[in-house]
Amino acid sequence: MPDVVSLIRVKRDNTRPLTGAEIAWLFAAYAGQTVADEQMAALLMAIYFNGLTTGELRAWTTEMIASGETLDLSHLSRPSVDKHSTGGVGDKVSLILAPLVASCGAAVPQLSGRGLGHTGGTLDKLESIPGWRASLSNEELTRALADPGAVIAAAGAGLAPADRRLYALRDVTGTVESIPLIASSIMSKKIAEGTQALVLDVKTGSGAFMRDQARAGQLARTMVALGAEHHVRTRALVTRMDTPLGRAVGNALEVEEAVKALTGEGPDDLMEVTFALAEHMLELAGITASPAEAIASGRAFDTWQRMIRVQGGDPDAPLPAARQVRHALPAPETGWITGLDALAVGIAAWRLGAGRARKEDDVSHTAGVRCLAKPGDHVRRGQPILELHADDESRFAPAAEALEAAGTVTIGSAPPPRTPLVVSVISAADVADEVGA
Amino acid sequence: MPDVVSLIRVKRDNTRPLTGAEIAWLFAAYAGQTVADEQMAALLMAIYFNGLTTGELRAWTTEMIASGETLDLSHLSRPSVDKHSTGGVGDKVSLILAPLVASCGAAVPQLSGRGLGHTGGTLDKLESIPGWRASLSNEELTRALADPGAVIAAAGAGLAPADRRLYALRDVTGTVESIPLIASSIMSKKIAEGTQALVLDVKTGSGAFMRDQARAGQLARTMVALGAEHHVRTRALVTRMDTPLGRAVGNALEVEEAVKALTGEGPDDLMEVTFALAEHMLELAGITASPAEAIASGRAFDTWQRMIRVQGGDPDAPLPAARQVRHALPAPETGWITGLDALAVGIAAWRLGAGRARKEDDVSHTAGVRCLAKPGDHVRRGQPILELHADDESRFAPAAEALEAAGTVTIGSAPPPRTPLVVSVISAADVADEVGA
Repeated sequence: MPDVVSLIRVKRDNTRPLTGAEIAWLFAAYAGQTVADEQMAALLMAIYFNGLTTGELRAWTTEMIASGETLDLSHLSRPSVDKHSTGGVGDKVSLILAPLVASCGAAVPQLSGRGLGHTGGTLDKLESIPGWRASLSNEELTRALADPGAVIAAAGAGLAPADRRLYALRDVTGTVESIPLIASSIMSKKIAEGTQALVLDVKTGSGAFMRDQARAGQLARTMVALGAEHHVRTRALVTRMDTPLGRAVGNALEVEEAVKALTGEGPDDLMEVTFALAEHMLELAGITASPAEAIASGRAFDTWQRMIRVQGGDPDAPLPAARQVRHALPAPETGWITGLDALAVGIAAWRLGAGRARKEDDVSHTAGVRCLAKPGDHVRRGQPILELHADDESRFAPAAEALEAAGTVTIGSAPPPRTPLVVSVISAADVADEVGA
Repeated sequence: MPDVVSLIRVKRDNTRPLTGAEIAWLFAAYAGQTVADEQMAALLMAIYFNGLTTGELRAWTTEMIASGETLDLSHLSRPSVDKHSTGGVGDKVSLILAPLVASCGAAVPQLSGRGLGHTGGTLDKLESIPGWRASLSNEELTRALADPGAVIAAAGAGLAPADRRLYALRDVTGTVESIPLIASSIMSKKIAEGTQALVLDVKTGSGAFMRDQARAGQLARTMVALGAEHHVRTRALVTRMDTPLGRAVGNALEVEEAVKALTGEGPDDLMEVTFALAEHMLELAGITASPAEAIASGRAFDTWQRMIRVQGGDPDAPLPAARQVRHALPAPETGWITGLDALAVGIAAWRLGAGRARKEDDVSHTAGVRCLAKPGDHVRRGQPILELHADDESRFAPAAEALEAAGTVTIGSAPPPRTPLVVSVISAADVADEVGA
């Protein structure tokens, strides 16, 4: 029987890779409480420093999946394909993408978590719709995947419970930011969910969890390799997250913008990312269809409405609105906006009440930020660039403070060059060597 | 108020040193249970990788000391001087040194812990003397330091309790082997104990905790700097621990050898280290005296007898002996022994029952190893080099297994050159630059 202190030391000193049997023992012992949280925390920090080899990561992910139940979506008449984003400011793409891709014939089984930190959670956004509920039984899930074909719901407690416990531990021990741990956390849940195909949106830039583009690429490659390993057709897009996506940041504000996008009135940057992801999803699902046509025809919007109704929501009910709205961030000079920092706007929205600092916190459905102007727009000196929404007057001062830093907005004498938001696409073929033993 | 996850991240990413206020907050929050063991474990592992700056280590040690009571030995009529060894195989030097240095006029307040692993603990050794008890009240301690002048006792729970808790945590989380954490653990207890001067025996070599000589030197320098910082006149000797010190390894066996040493019949290597440490201790205590003369005159032995009696022991009672004795490790060829691996012998003694694997374990007073021949001795092929002592027949096989590895004993055609056991001496002046700022 392995001894946990020896395993920690092996990882700490990088003397050799941990074996599959050792990792299996570790997960069983952690579940059985013979390995304590402080021992797992020390191991996670050692992994933060020394990483996991391909073989270790494969075993680690396998144990995460095996810790719970696995859904079987193979009996669905539609091909299943899911999407996961590492999180960005104003990233409401899932809300548009799920009904859009379902309306083209795929089943989209999007099981999500709650948001933590400055990037909001998809479930939090949908909960601003009156009546909508995040929980579905496995039976309700299967039925909804048959028709209307898209589900955005809370991941049940039965999927990868080891990940739930490890994530809570990582959150309080400063061990979240580790590429293999992030990759196994995301992929174990998606693999357990039973999707046949998966497109990952790995964000990079100031507003992203992975600011550094090289690290974002590494995370993307790691996840694609894990997906291929588990026979999930997986592709990853690395996309820019330097400025908020679209113009709305905050729960109800983002739902409103997503609905507009589904009716053909989405902002260019939002649609650029949405269409890119939709095309890859459809391709992996083996479906030939035009996402733009699905929107223009009204099919995507119809699927959205039915998707919301299945989960008790009223898609026609007016969305809640904040009691207090204020202008903020006056343009420092006249000219073209060349940059609007996603992180600063994300933190402002978070402080207004749109996000939670701890898992136990409630979020405000109505709080958030609307961008009145964005990079590429011309502004006059003093013209407000943001509109802040809050339920409570006291929220404005801390939010405004987040916007005060130099560089939150930059103004130039000419419009900035247009740069594509999709930086790179990683397919299984690109990581074939990383998958093998 | 600092947030522990932020502090862990700062240390993890080495972005800046933690401030004294942050470290003080951390210790208070850990004592108050608002920082959990898993958070401290993650921080300890980050410290394992990134170390502590001089300023951080100073604050860390200060908080360890401040977590409990501090003894005041300044009212003693004798100058106080203590010794600490990082632990070696057959290292019974403390047993000889305390009465020896006390018999020259110093007060030696040696508060010790229990042994863990293959190097035995001083208290475990003394407990093989019938009647001897390790616990003393602070009042008994002060009285014994006045006369006979030497005390070897268990450190009370009141001294550096934070170290006790951190050490237990490090022990189960694979974070023991960190130079700043070792240094602050040892020095916080010695500083809290109130000694005015301290000589450290930092062992290096196969049987030592710090096998690597450079790391042993670094630990020595770190501890001397911490001592100077807290106005304890501190000196460190780095000494070789490649082969057992003396010929006895195990509790009663080592007491027997220590008593012989106090009556002038100690083996050369044991006396070389003992006299070197004694001379530095006396120098730091400002006492001019000859340790060799203290032994030759019988003063040292007399002090030993009184020291044992003060703690309830009978120095004239026969020591317990093992029920089973066997020869082991036959010389593989005829020639001169050039090496006898301290670690292998230490593990054999440990497995025979002389040491404990866990804090809760009992140790055998009688188990151990006697070296019938040592490096520099001539042996004939097949002649046994070791004598194993155990209470229980079943202990011999695992002990013998520890001795089977190639290199446990090496034989040459000529006696090995004599190398001095003291590798280097580090004084406060040598680390003056490490103490400042």
